[in-house]
Amino acid sequence: MGEREIELTDEHNVLATYLIETPYPLERAAEVMAGEQSTGTFVSVPGETPELKARHAAKVVSIKELGAYDAPSLPDCYIPPDMGKPVYRRALVQLSFPLHNFGPSLPNLLAAVAGNLYELREFSGLRLVDLELPQPFAARYPGPKFGIEGTRKLAGVYDRPIIGTIIKPSIGLPLSEYGPMVRELAEAGLDFIKDDELCGNPLYASFEQRVEAAMAEIERAADRTGKKLMYAFNITGDIDEMKRNHDIVLQAGGTCVMVSINSVGWSGVAHLRQYTELPVHGHRNQWGAMTRCPLLGMSFTAYQKLCRLAGVDHLHTNGLDSKFTESNESVAQSITDCLTPMLGGYTVMPVLSSAQWAGSAVSTYGAVRSLDVIHLAGGGILAHPDGTAAGVRSMQQGWEAAVQGIDLNTYAGTHSELQRAMEAFGKR
Amino acid sequence: MGEREIELTDEHNVLATYLIETPYPLERAAEVMAGEQSTGTFVSVPGETPELKARHAAKVVSIKELGAYDAPSLPDCYIPPDMGKPVYRRALVQLSFPLHNFGPSLPNLLAAVAGNLYELREFSGLRLVDLELPQPFAARYPGPKFGIEGTRKLAGVYDRPIIGTIIKPSIGLPLSEYGPMVRELAEAGLDFIKDDELCGNPLYASFEQRVEAAMAEIERAADRTGKKLMYAFNITGDIDEMKRNHDIVLQAGGTCVMVSINSVGWSGVAHLRQYTELPVHGHRNQWGAMTRCPLLGMSFTAYQKLCRLAGVDHLHTNGLDSKFTESNESVAQSITDCLTPMLGGYTVMPVLSSAQWAGSAVSTYGAVRSLDVIHLAGGGILAHPDGTAAGVRSMQQGWEAAVQGIDLNTYAGTHSELQRAMEAFGKR
Repeated sequence: MGEREIELTDEHNVLATYLIETPYPLERAAEVMAGEQSTGTFVSVPGETPELKARHAAKVVSIKELGAYDAPSLPDCYIPPDMGKPVYRRALVQLSFPLHNFGPSLPNLLAAVAGNLYELREFSGLRLVDLELPQPFAARYPGPKFGIEGTRKLAGVYDRPIIGTIIKPSIGLPLSEYGPMVRELAEAGLDFIKDDELCGNPLYASFEQRVEAAMAEIERAADRTGKKLMYAFNITGDIDEMKRNHDIVLQAGGTCVMVSINSVGWSGVAHLRQYTELPVHGHRNQWGAMTRCPLLGMSFTAYQKLCRLAGVDHLHTNGLDSKFTESNESVAQSITDCLTPMLGGYTVMPVLSSAQWAGSAVSTYGAVRSLDVIHLAGGGILAHPDGTAAGVRSMQQGWEAAVQGIDLNTYAGTHSELQRAMEAFGKR
Repeated sequence: MGEREIELTDEHNVLATYLIETPYPLERAAEVMAGEQSTGTFVSVPGETPELKARHAAKVVSIKELGAYDAPSLPDCYIPPDMGKPVYRRALVQLSFPLHNFGPSLPNLLAAVAGNLYELREFSGLRLVDLELPQPFAARYPGPKFGIEGTRKLAGVYDRPIIGTIIKPSIGLPLSEYGPMVRELAEAGLDFIKDDELCGNPLYASFEQRVEAAMAEIERAADRTGKKLMYAFNITGDIDEMKRNHDIVLQAGGTCVMVSINSVGWSGVAHLRQYTELPVHGHRNQWGAMTRCPLLGMSFTAYQKLCRLAGVDHLHTNGLDSKFTESNESVAQSITDCLTPMLGGYTVMPVLSSAQWAGSAVSTYGAVRSLDVIHLAGGGILAHPDGTAAGVRSMQQGWEAAVQGIDLNTYAGTHSELQRAMEAFGKR
């Protein structure tokens, strides 16, 4: 009986791993984190019995010390007068949260594993680095509806990355130029287009008008070529607007919708997941605010699990050698994270973008050894010296060289689009 | 005609102010921020005409240099080989975004004013510190439905702070003890109770059961005393669950719902605002992750405007001398921010909590000179040596002394509940 109870408790626990930094003894600091989940007030209150604590308190599973530093990473950590000169120790701390405290609920999970922890004055750094969720979450949140397989089927692309681009200029393109641009891209043999995250339902060209203009061109090109380009329309908006926009895309024959995850929230994404009949392209803009301070916020490893649980089918990871701060090592880890199974499913397609071109394929494939990516290039396709179709071909050739392990220069010798891409973009 | 166009553009602009840190010339860095909103790719693309740029680009309004530092606040800022030893300059930068780029849409606004900016490699720090929104946002988002006035009317409390507490222990209280605890609090003369953010719809006691148990006691006490305690039930959940939970509270005669803003997202909050028939108590847990690094994320000044726009009626600010890292100066500024009018309305009631007791009234009133707050004390009420009713009285007495400018010790001489509170909590 006792053993069964322990088994039950364990299998229903949520494990959360944190990187912390604190001038307090690590054991005490970890207990403060766990305790914030049970009592949460500065004096004991009636009703807080040992039995209640045993059943509901978060528990410290492990502490792994990483190093000590003279200066705090974050300000305003509380130093008691009797502490002397503080030393700031870093450690990985794993806590175990009983599921019966919050149930398999994404928003209520967040209050428990993140919640007020970031503000505790015992810490000069606190970052959620990983989460392990128990099976009941899988019953409540079935995860991506289409995933990698469903996306490939709809896009008609197998055995290589899905090659795509982003409508540029990001904003301001008049409708009169919008249709022709989509036509050019569709005729150029592209697999995928996404809206820029800056372009949702702007006042100068409504979402409905944009979808109508784009889909007319996509359907026309599909009639000719037999291949229907997948367009991720940015349906980001308040909940009802997002659903209306989804319906507009669906009715126009579109095959993908895009949403800014951090704008609509995980609850908004989970709501869309229930509703959608199309793959959800998850854009992570604003993510930098959550992750760029190494001792605060959340790692992508934890973030992408929450996004997959909420149900996105595609998830942005940045590309290697991007214009952003993220290191190639971190980008490669993010792509690998997305491709690592969780809860027995939940396949999500990583989306690589920012300053990408044909040559990016080599470093990317070298780092992640997978073709299950959506590879987006803006200028790297649209600004190819021989035009968009050559830009698309150059991207495919870059991946062909990478997969076959052929040196890019050698492969370019017999593939002119790649050659010209290297001349134009290779020396940046 | 030209002048009218300029007027129109100006009045519809969104002004966003950032604290930045960069090793690049400030003018260039500011242009990179603004430019990320218009081209967003590493080479110019067809269609990016000067006319389009003039109409849609974000513009640099002002740059105010603040100082220079040897070390970067955030890692991974890109230093070109020819830069030499970098100097990291801080500045306040104000950008102006044309509203027609995104329309009065909260989620799409966020992609523009926050978006990818945090990841730009030209910056070793970037924080959104303020936002000025044009009137069209007021038409789309009517703001708090009840606000300060509506909350006071429902709670029946005027001319003094609303005194409240949080159900403790935060989690695990069995239903058999839950009703009696609410009864004790309602009979003690409290104005307000809120659920802990950790307690939503846990597996050990369903939301419906908790509401039923609490409201039975609240109604019974109201029948006797004529005063109906306001209880902010934590309805946080996925979108449909949140609405179901709202309905449960409404049907049980409850007068307030609470939501974890960062768990359901601003879109989720805005959706609730449309739906709710009760004041929305906005809890900001997880906020620390967005704000604790001084050169990243967002200031509360910007955050609370977004929360008010989404429609919360109450908003947590921490209290002075809390158990959290936030300085008293920052807490006082947050309270003042909440009480500062925006868009001609949008009154929101700041909620003060964490390690609060009767004596907190003096420093709080001294700092913010307002009674329009919800003042929450957990242990400061529940652990009062003479019981909960004495705890409540002591809180009221603390505010009486503060408003009348009477020294706390003097006032305690004729008010025994305050005297006992000072003995118990005053020497921490």
